Amino acid sequence: MFASRFLVVTALLALLTPALRAEDGYDLWLRYHPVSDPALLQHYRTSISGILVQGDSSILTAAREELHRGLAGLLGREIPIVREANQDGLLVAGTAATSPLIASPDFSMQMKVAGEEGYFIRSSKTGQASRIVVGANADIGVLYGVFHFLRLLQTQQRLDELSITAAPRIRHRVLNHWDNLDGTVERGYAGFSLWDWHKLPDHLPPRYKDYARANASIGINGTVLTNVNANAISLTPEYLKKAAALANVFRTYGIRTYLTARFSAPMEIGGLNTADPLDPQVVTWWKQKADEIYRQIPDFGGFLVKANSEGQPGPQQYGRTHADGANLLADALAAHGGIVMWRAFVYDDKVPDDRGKQAYNEFKPLDGKFRSNVLIQVKNGPIDFQPREPFHPLFGAMPGTPLMMEFQITREYLGFATHLVYLAPLFEEVLDSDTFATGRGSSVARVIDGSLEGHRVTGIAGVANIGSDRDWCGSVFGQANWFAYGRLAWDHSFAPEAIASEWIRLTFSNDPGFVKQVSSMMTDSREAVVNYMTPLGLHHLMARDHHYGPGPWVSGGPRNDWTSVYYHRADATGIGFDRTTTGSNAVAQYFRPVADVFGSLDRCPEGYLLWFHHISWDYQMRSGRTLWEELCRRYQLGVDSVRKMQKTWSLLEGRIDPERYEQTRVFLGIQEAEARWWRDACVLYFQTFSKKPIPAECEQPTQTLDYFQSVVSRYVPGTARPIR
Amino acid sequence: MFASRFLVVTALLALLTPALRAEDGYDLWLRYHPVSDPALLQHYRTSISGILVQGDSSILTAAREELHRGLAGLLGREIPIVREANQDGLLVAGTAATSPLIASPDFSMQMKVAGEEGYFIRSSKTGQASRIVVGANADIGVLYGVFHFLRLLQTQQRLDELSITAAPRIRHRVLNHWDNLDGTVERGYAGFSLWDWHKLPDHLPPRYKDYARANASIGINGTVLTNVNANAISLTPEYLKKAAALANVFRTYGIRTYLTARFSAPMEIGGLNTADPLDPQVVTWWKQKADEIYRQIPDFGGFLVKANSEGQPGPQQYGRTHADGANLLADALAAHGGIVMWRAFVYDDKVPDDRGKQAYNEFKPLDGKFRSNVLIQVKNGPIDFQPREPFHPLFGAMPGTPLMMEFQITREYLGFATHLVYLAPLFEEVLDSDTFATGRGSSVARVIDGSLEGHRVTGIAGVANIGSDRDWCGSVFGQANWFAYGRLAWDHSFAPEAIASEWIRLTFSNDPGFVKQVSSMMTDSREAVVNYMTPLGLHHLMARDHHYGPGPWVSGGPRNDWTSVYYHRADATGIGFDRTTTGSNAVAQYFRPVADVFGSLDRCPEGYLLWFHHISWDYQMRSGRTLWEELCRRYQLGVDSVRKMQKTWSLLEGRIDPERYEQTRVFLGIQEAEARWWRDACVLYFQTFSKKPIPAECEQPTQTLDYFQSVVSRYVPGTARPIR
Repeated sequence: MFASRFLVVTALLALLTPALRAEDGYDLWLRYHPVSDPALLQHYRTSISGILVQGDSSILTAAREELHRGLAGLLGREIPIVREANQDGLLVAGTAATSPLIASPDFSMQMKVAGEEGYFIRSSKTGQASRIVVGANADIGVLYGVFHFLRLLQTQQRLDELSITAAPRIRHRVLNHWDNLDGTVERGYAGFSLWDWHKLPDHLPPRYKDYARANASIGINGTVLTNVNANAISLTPEYLKKAAALANVFRTYGIRTYLTARFSAPMEIGGLNTADPLDPQVVTWWKQKADEIYRQIPDFGGFLVKANSEGQPGPQQYGRTHADGANLLADALAAHGGIVMWRAFVYDDKVPDDRGKQAYNEFKPLDGKFRSNVLIQVKNGPIDFQPREPFHPLFGAMPGTPLMMEFQITREYLGFATHLVYLAPLFEEVLDSDTFATGRGSSVARVIDGSLEGHRVTGIAGVANIGSDRDWCGSVFGQANWFAYGRLAWDHSFAPEAIASEWIRLTFSNDPGFVKQVSSMMTDSREAVVNYMTPLGLHHLMARDHHYGPGPWVSGGPRNDWTSVYYHRADATGIGFDRTTTGSNAVAQYFRPVADVFGSLDRCPEGYLLWFHHISWDYQMRSGRTLWEELCRRYQLGVDSVRKMQKTWSLLEGRIDPERYEQTRVFLGIQEAEARWWRDACVLYFQTFSKKPIPAECEQPTQTLDYFQSVVSRYVPGTARPIR
Repeated sequence: MFASRFLVVTALLALLTPALRAEDGYDLWLRYHPVSDPALLQHYRTSISGILVQGDSSILTAAREELHRGLAGLLGREIPIVREANQDGLLVAGTAATSPLIASPDFSMQMKVAGEEGYFIRSSKTGQASRIVVGANADIGVLYGVFHFLRLLQTQQRLDELSITAAPRIRHRVLNHWDNLDGTVERGYAGFSLWDWHKLPDHLPPRYKDYARANASIGINGTVLTNVNANAISLTPEYLKKAAALANVFRTYGIRTYLTARFSAPMEIGGLNTADPLDPQVVTWWKQKADEIYRQIPDFGGFLVKANSEGQPGPQQYGRTHADGANLLADALAAHGGIVMWRAFVYDDKVPDDRGKQAYNEFKPLDGKFRSNVLIQVKNGPIDFQPREPFHPLFGAMPGTPLMMEFQITREYLGFATHLVYLAPLFEEVLDSDTFATGRGSSVARVIDGSLEGHRVTGIAGVANIGSDRDWCGSVFGQANWFAYGRLAWDHSFAPEAIASEWIRLTFSNDPGFVKQVSSMMTDSREAVVNYMTPLGLHHLMARDHHYGPGPWVSGGPRNDWTSVYYHRADATGIGFDRTTTGSNAVAQYFRPVADVFGSLDRCPEGYLLWFHHISWDYQMRSGRTLWEELCRRYQLGVDSVRKMQKTWSLLEGRIDPERYEQTRVFLGIQEAEARWWRDACVLYFQTFSKKPIPAECEQPTQTLDYFQSVVSRYVPGTARPIR
């Protein structure tokens, strides 16, 4: 009796809870707060009187649960789950296999567009009964459709005449977690790892499911649990059991689990004395390891591999190629349907060439040599997730090989968790770049979605910004980047501004004025960070190793290409990395006319100017200023932009909950101080070469260069050395 | 307008929120859920119609806020804050300085008993008006009284005739956080550090305040932020600013902030070439450092020091004594009212003596040589937080020096976060032990509360089990140990069972049957872990270094006294550490008759038998069994006890929320498996010496000893090496 009373009470509480949680950011964009507009609420209540999800697979059950939970929150009352389509105002969802309604010829067109993972949402009327139908070919499509449907209510759209079809443009939409088995996260700024390996496989706290829900809600369908700087221990039976427990949770949300494969694993945990990819014992070892993994995780996604890069082992140690290495793993996985995501992020400072050229040089000759279940994962730019880089020249250069995009959602070079930097404009800039690989219209997006070269196996990866912090991302605005990545991975034609508006509505408020102001803060934020960190094509000026704060003076140390002076090349005559024909000729890796544009001082976009050109301090910019003046001005503009964000935000006080308001207020304060730190340190440092006064339109530094060079940042997050 | 509407809405939500949060454990014992008994709710509503906290200091403001929040939750409606005592049913709180009512002679007796930090709670009637009065001499006493008052409602007690006075028996009631600046926690099993040093001093998320609220609610008044294995960086200006930001939050809840002092800091961050405590430069450095700290943190509590122990630097490197070292720091702090807590946990494996004797040998001769603001912090037993140890022989042996108790709340040797082990019985066993220092009645508790030897500066420390996990402690039942530590630190006469019952009521339910069953689980749990890990006085059998799981076979390595064989001394003739006159004679460090009892095979309590005696496998125990049989039986009993807990818990399904039910269910499953692991590994290992069959009343192991010895536990929490 007591027990049942408890259940009744908790059921009631569950209905009310979404609306009443303290705003600690945990609910992300799935808050399901009651609809505040009374007329719209009435419209929703009228339109939806019951939930009929047809089918009982675990994914369809999750879809039913999500609808039940979401509608209860949004409509402020429980919407009954029904078993028969015998009432007006039903929300009917299912697949052709589970629902006669959805199998009906009425929807055959929509089902065709929906494809493997897509869905349709239709307002439909059969006789007296009006319904909303969410249909798909696969269970996961239904779940995606359900999240889309809930988003309509969350963003206060009417339901009268819904006619939506949606399908993802890219097949593998994955997160890369650079998480170590000891709980640290390389380049993680949101606490520590979500994965509590020690308590796995037994303990599966609700957070794992909520992680999966959040991913499914934006269409992410894969997660690589472990760091690319890989640990062979993650492939031991003990750890596979733990990974399998997570996979069991994620499967219900259509998410496949992947692991990173350390190339030397056959030696480290297999007892072999070689990891040579052509050695039969090695071949057998990987084959058996793959079989073992699939016994534990039947839908295992495959391996992500960083090989022969930054000290990681790889096939080149045995005189073999990346193709030999990737194919070794691909063959082991092929029978089970797994894929290999092989990273192109390789470089070697012993190669006396521009680091930005090396991936292209190593990989282009291997085009066509990879198995069909290998994707080459290429960072968006040729260096390393800088505030702005030109697109990577490999895009378009390997038509016989599917290339995946690798974006970084965690902001290693973009202010960590505290700076407000919305990344969708960066993502879009890269995706929209035209490679001219097969003439005009050969955008990077078309390379990675397979449409340009006819690939069916396609992929996109985002290095996750997710950790154990209560708000997942270390800041509320960090959540927008996870969200935007997922939305663009689903459909790269979405506009950054539209994604921002949608996220703001889901996360904060549907108030149009609020949405507009915050959206403009977000959209402008990427250019702000470019300006106060690395304007005009400068790159990699960050402090050594941890990359926190400015370090344009960084030189010496173990590798030339881990220093700032390697990249900015400032001297008495000017500044910038000459990558034209007179320099490293990296421009030649691009197709024409891109190569010509980048290589031409006159035509090169100013945003890439110092990326490709070494130019004089007195060079006259399009603004009429000298390069030196323009450089200083850009640094000042960066600071000014942050101050504008602060101003905008301060006007929004009281419009949202005090918790998230306050976090953002404090973080913007940190960002403003760090933007000044960047400006002053860089301007003072570059002034030692330009020997020119800081122009009046730039604030004068309040500390000396000596001071900035003496700053030591300790215990910077994201740099803990994992225990091996 | 929008702003004010938002504020109204959130005010309403704030009222309802406490009752409606998902049960993730964040709210600890401060849940303030609505009173479920209708009659009692009516009684409370009648008794409390308004809140009048007189005075506006930050602590009194916190008291008012807590009452407002707590009563809103408990009574399900807002209780107005009033400014005048002109209505019936007021809750009036304040000090003699802020409240004429409390200053009245009516309460002079109570105020006397309350003393510096205590309080009284009285139901009072003046003319027509009935009131409840919470009074104290100091603001912090009012806050403590408010928490006590709220606890009365949370535990469903009537308010008609309240007449309570309470005062702490110990002055410094502190937590020791073994937290490193890189976010790792030594021996931490609840995630990572609460302190986000990187974002300090700017970012002060609500969690810091909630940590302070929780501590104040149980009377904890000090917190040492940093690991005893200290890092001098924590004393740099940059980090002092960060510590000061935390101190500002904690001050409002009567909590003083302390830091650990690395003895070699004058060299590491001060540029000196010595840390010799008698060197004038060193004296000056510490004096200036203390002055600097007090400029940032005016109520800084002082230093906790681990010196000349396990590789930490200390005065002995310069031929000086612990007293020289402690007095150096004490003199630097004295002018500001700070204290030094100098740990007695010292031992040296180059000393060819029983490790358990060394602290006594080093410290007893220094009795009386310490400044008056030095406390010697002594672990509860002579080894290291084992499941059971006899009390430390230093207690009572240094009458001229105040000794602090150091308990470990985090369970390094007691199953980490997942095992359900309620520590209050362990704490009580030590506190109640009679040292006979000045004859019968010289309990350890009376040593540390100062009553035995007339000390006014007294202290107790608990090594915190608190981390970044959402439920603070890594498990809901872990919270009980934080709670129990605080309650016993306040008043060591509280009974473990009573504390358990109170905690269960605050945390789960007031249902008497539920309370009884869970209380008995908790109370029995300590003996369970003794039995399945280290029965009959065995100790330190844990796996090397990380201490996770059994390792009775551990031998060799860097230090003899870091091995298991050093402690159990099993051989063909028997098992146990002879600490009698025929052995190390550690018993002689105890007063008579304790020394005689421990030293006598017949009179020694069986719980300490193998701690003090090496005895034959055939020795006849009081049960009539041989030692071997009894040992096996105890291991089995340990497993059986865990199964009984599982049984009890399973019967409680549906009586509480599913989240906390499920976490505990899973963790009990882990505990049962690990109890079997312990039993099987230890019984098989000791059998190699006893050469006797495992008796029928003990389950036979399902794996071989070889198997257990081959188990390697990787990435065990609490052992990450901090970056220095």
